[in-house]
Amino acid sequence: MSIEQALYERALIYGEDSVRMTAAAGAGHPSSALSLVHIVSALFYRMRHDPENPWNTLSDRLVLSEGHSVPVVYAAMAEMGYKIGKSPRAARALTREDLLSLRDLASPLDGHPNPVLGVPFFDTATGSLGQGLSNANGLVLGNRVRGLRRKIYCIAGDSEVREGQYDEAMRFASKYRLEVILILNVNGYGQSGATKELMPMDYRAELQARRWQVLEVDGHDVSQLLAALDRANEVQGSPVAILANTVKGWGVGALQKGNPHGKPLSPAEVEKAVGELRTLSRSSTGRLRPQKPDERTTRWLRDESGLPVPNFAALDKDFAQKGKMAPRKAYGYALRELGKVNEKVVVLDAEVSNSTFTVYFRDAFPERFFECAIAEQNMVGVGGGLAASGLVPFINSFGKFLVMGYAQWEMNGQSGLNIKAVGSHVGITPCSDGPSQMALSDVPYMMSLPGIVVLSASDAVQGYQFVSLAAAHEGWMYLRNYRPDMPLLYGPDTKFRVGGSNVLQRGDAVTLVSHGYMVHVAKEAAARLEKEKGLKVSLVDAYSLKPLDTETILGCADRTEGRLLTVEDNYAGLGPAVSRAAAARGGYRVEVMAVESFPKSARREKDIFSYCGLSVEDILARAQAMLVK
Amino acid sequence: MSIEQALYERALIYGEDSVRMTAAAGAGHPSSALSLVHIVSALFYRMRHDPENPWNTLSDRLVLSEGHSVPVVYAAMAEMGYKIGKSPRAARALTREDLLSLRDLASPLDGHPNPVLGVPFFDTATGSLGQGLSNANGLVLGNRVRGLRRKIYCIAGDSEVREGQYDEAMRFASKYRLEVILILNVNGYGQSGATKELMPMDYRAELQARRWQVLEVDGHDVSQLLAALDRANEVQGSPVAILANTVKGWGVGALQKGNPHGKPLSPAEVEKAVGELRTLSRSSTGRLRPQKPDERTTRWLRDESGLPVPNFAALDKDFAQKGKMAPRKAYGYALRELGKVNEKVVVLDAEVSNSTFTVYFRDAFPERFFECAIAEQNMVGVGGGLAASGLVPFINSFGKFLVMGYAQWEMNGQSGLNIKAVGSHVGITPCSDGPSQMALSDVPYMMSLPGIVVLSASDAVQGYQFVSLAAAHEGWMYLRNYRPDMPLLYGPDTKFRVGGSNVLQRGDAVTLVSHGYMVHVAKEAAARLEKEKGLKVSLVDAYSLKPLDTETILGCADRTEGRLLTVEDNYAGLGPAVSRAAAARGGYRVEVMAVESFPKSARREKDIFSYCGLSVEDILARAQAMLVK
Repeated sequence: MSIEQALYERALIYGEDSVRMTAAAGAGHPSSALSLVHIVSALFYRMRHDPENPWNTLSDRLVLSEGHSVPVVYAAMAEMGYKIGKSPRAARALTREDLLSLRDLASPLDGHPNPVLGVPFFDTATGSLGQGLSNANGLVLGNRVRGLRRKIYCIAGDSEVREGQYDEAMRFASKYRLEVILILNVNGYGQSGATKELMPMDYRAELQARRWQVLEVDGHDVSQLLAALDRANEVQGSPVAILANTVKGWGVGALQKGNPHGKPLSPAEVEKAVGELRTLSRSSTGRLRPQKPDERTTRWLRDESGLPVPNFAALDKDFAQKGKMAPRKAYGYALRELGKVNEKVVVLDAEVSNSTFTVYFRDAFPERFFECAIAEQNMVGVGGGLAASGLVPFINSFGKFLVMGYAQWEMNGQSGLNIKAVGSHVGITPCSDGPSQMALSDVPYMMSLPGIVVLSASDAVQGYQFVSLAAAHEGWMYLRNYRPDMPLLYGPDTKFRVGGSNVLQRGDAVTLVSHGYMVHVAKEAAARLEKEKGLKVSLVDAYSLKPLDTETILGCADRTEGRLLTVEDNYAGLGPAVSRAAAARGGYRVEVMAVESFPKSARREKDIFSYCGLSVEDILARAQAMLVK
Repeated sequence: MSIEQALYERALIYGEDSVRMTAAAGAGHPSSALSLVHIVSALFYRMRHDPENPWNTLSDRLVLSEGHSVPVVYAAMAEMGYKIGKSPRAARALTREDLLSLRDLASPLDGHPNPVLGVPFFDTATGSLGQGLSNANGLVLGNRVRGLRRKIYCIAGDSEVREGQYDEAMRFASKYRLEVILILNVNGYGQSGATKELMPMDYRAELQARRWQVLEVDGHDVSQLLAALDRANEVQGSPVAILANTVKGWGVGALQKGNPHGKPLSPAEVEKAVGELRTLSRSSTGRLRPQKPDERTTRWLRDESGLPVPNFAALDKDFAQKGKMAPRKAYGYALRELGKVNEKVVVLDAEVSNSTFTVYFRDAFPERFFECAIAEQNMVGVGGGLAASGLVPFINSFGKFLVMGYAQWEMNGQSGLNIKAVGSHVGITPCSDGPSQMALSDVPYMMSLPGIVVLSASDAVQGYQFVSLAAAHEGWMYLRNYRPDMPLLYGPDTKFRVGGSNVLQRGDAVTLVSHGYMVHVAKEAAARLEKEKGLKVSLVDAYSLKPLDTETILGCADRTEGRLLTVEDNYAGLGPAVSRAAAARGGYRVEVMAVESFPKSARREKDIFSYCGLSVEDILARAQAMLVK
């Protein structure tokens, strides 16, 4: 039997398994999976990969951007005896029997690729459409930084490339001459109709306008697919797209009529479908061995990001002499220092590197700095691919513009990646620019995410030291940096920790809890309360917004008769979190000061604080009022 | 003096004023503004608009996508004696003197366009780059729906069109043959360097690949600009882009050297710059009158969205007979009913209309339904433009994918628009699909936004009636719809209200507060607590998550010795809000149950509830534990 014949037979098995497993799950997308059977069959043969050791760092990688088609990939994995498991030691071979557990609570085979469950074949979670190519771009950059020669493939659905992130990702791949191979599954149908009617798009013209090389094949012709994969692999210094024309529901009549998207078959229909597929079989298939990488390693790149962390305390921190500095600038210095001792640190910026001060890193380590331009969705997704390559990406923009990448950020978190986002110009201090430039939802949004660390810098020492915390902490993290020069609150060697806080002063009247810039405003209010009213308050710098140091905060409040006043320059996030901790314990009274309406422009910071009800006087009045109640 | 001469002279005035006002503000982007002086000069002459009555609904409109260049537009407005004010009655002419108040707290001239402050020239807030063309698309669709013939212009910066939203917006304009005129300010420099080096992009090729007509001009040649605007205005049934090659910092040497982006001049530099500009003047300028629309009206379209609301109680609600139905389906019915009585309702969907049930509306009112395909950023931005046309857009997708449009959503809110977003498939009930399809951050995120209304449907009656509330409420609103069929909790004529809640049962043990699907789980827990433990709890359906009915909730808790237990199937949002209200008053104890880690796939809803610690048994145990403490 020729290789082509064997691959056709395999495709039938993948089809049969896709139909069976989605039926067993009572959910899933068999019609989408069937459109990919020959593509996956050819790709799994052409890829150099290592089913017995999916952690092999030298294996070619596949990002399945159209995550809902994952059954066909699971089927191919089972047919090749792919190992699954959370670690090499706990690995076992995926069986065809396992496939029937698709989407079950006890199964690692989620409805969409989910690497944290123990399917290390996948580097990143996908399923929120439009994101895969950015991940793949990041993996190619990861190869470049780490000197790996593995190939990165990405399979995308035709409807999802309407997502603007694809535009960003295509342009990015072109700029950086990334040798990524995108296989576009042109089956012509989206969930709700014909793709070209839903939104016309000329794939070839658009790709060529972005200087991609474009090949086109019949996506059910294995010979054409193999030839195209060979040609694509020969291309150097350019991304390549293979437009694969396919049939949604290929081989199964019931899955072709009326575009039954995301509809599994009934048991009776399954038998009919399997019968149809089997009539297409011409021979029993022998087992084809995959092509393997030249060498083997047993570590998953994702697990390799453990980092040397510089001893920042020993560094010359000239800024400490100046008495004040913008946290974003101190962050820029620290990032460069980190880059010196840790070659796994990579930095991405969205055309504001001279504002975020990532220019310092860029100039020192140009090969580890990636300008993403004004295209945050792709930037955050590329960060995911870099993190999945065992690198530690710091993703930078104004906090306000990171909102453009929240969907991608959530997927990075779900992928369990060690990744950092850094928002500068946060809060209301970019006052004269007005609300379109102010990050205000970032605090409640980021604090709501599971397992994340959120740190807010109240001075340059924190801005500097938080880079060290970010390097030492394995997981996703959001750092919040301020634009203005701010007086130093801390000595250069002060130690901070994830989950920590600092009590700046202790008193018995009210416990003020704040973070970032507002700590300075609260501090001034505290001084005036003491001087003018004889009231001594406690003041907590809750720099670790998540996890929040509730013990320290409530401990302070225990000495202020349970009175807590939170102050923040963003939509309420700290306040509700402190309230939650206090209300869970009982016996406290918490008042929350936060931005509660849209700001506007103001030339002076004190004006915008007044406008938002967050001035020294406002805090003073509110604290006093709490004592009267 | 010829018209061209007069326009050149005007451009110099705009340049001088741009330099002066940014210097007065000590902030802003004079170099960007200067690159636009001739474009704005020509456009303000070619537009048919009405400076004495900016509310005139028949005036051509300009969306300034590169919002940071706004000083040049303010300058042109002042030169034309444009009226500003929050209403026609409060209007007064903008003066050149006013320009010097740029970015001041007391000034309506924010650092970026901000229509809510009383500058009705602008329809939408801009400044978060990349969003303007979507707004403009929405305005053109608004023309179409409302039968207006005004022209819609959009000025974009060259760096910002790297934002993937531009890709989405360009494709959308092409599909719908929108006669939008995009003027691309190709000054070649972004904030941190040369645009083509930061991220290469072939504007002409990319636009043509998306079937746009493309013109190219010297952006400082008024004759070429006028000719291009004339040609663009003649094009029918297609979007047109005018590539205008410009010089950043045109006319002022100090603003051309080294790309001083966002840097105002010092007073000494201002005088030098003004001197340079004045040497370019050849004559004193006469005042050119703008071309006016044929007719005049005195209402701003934005203010016209007052809506007839159907008497839903009088409608035949067949679903009420069935005992259960998915809220999303009832929503689909209601939306169609609303469409029948209110011609201002328009609906947008991102290729999931058969899941969100907007198909009902689409089939009934195809001319008011806009398929946006898988491109949520543009969809949310188009919604902004439609709302600014006095229409009432309902923006639809899975709640999870609306995250892709959060940046645009925030700008819609800042614009003060009457706009609705509707997320379906929310929470953890899309269980077999897994976390990539679950909207979990939507509740804390949306609840954090100022002035928004957030409603979560706990049954089909609510899913139906909330459409009525959305129609009656002027402002931004987020509706949360569930996928599964859910038993009815309410009779078909039950009335709900923004800021309301429903007490489903009263007891003395614990007050359970929940929303959406979890109300059913909590209800079962309540029944079992009573039956098995003899404990009677209060159960509140807090369907209005924002504003939250804290009086009712705390009132119930007053009768359960202050014990409150919140239950929600999303990252914590209701819990912290209840905690905040309780802790502000004092004397309560609140425990929060929410999704606190990433879910995975599960075939049965009860499995995923257990996995997330939100099962009936979990609630039961937690409520009991509260009584022991």
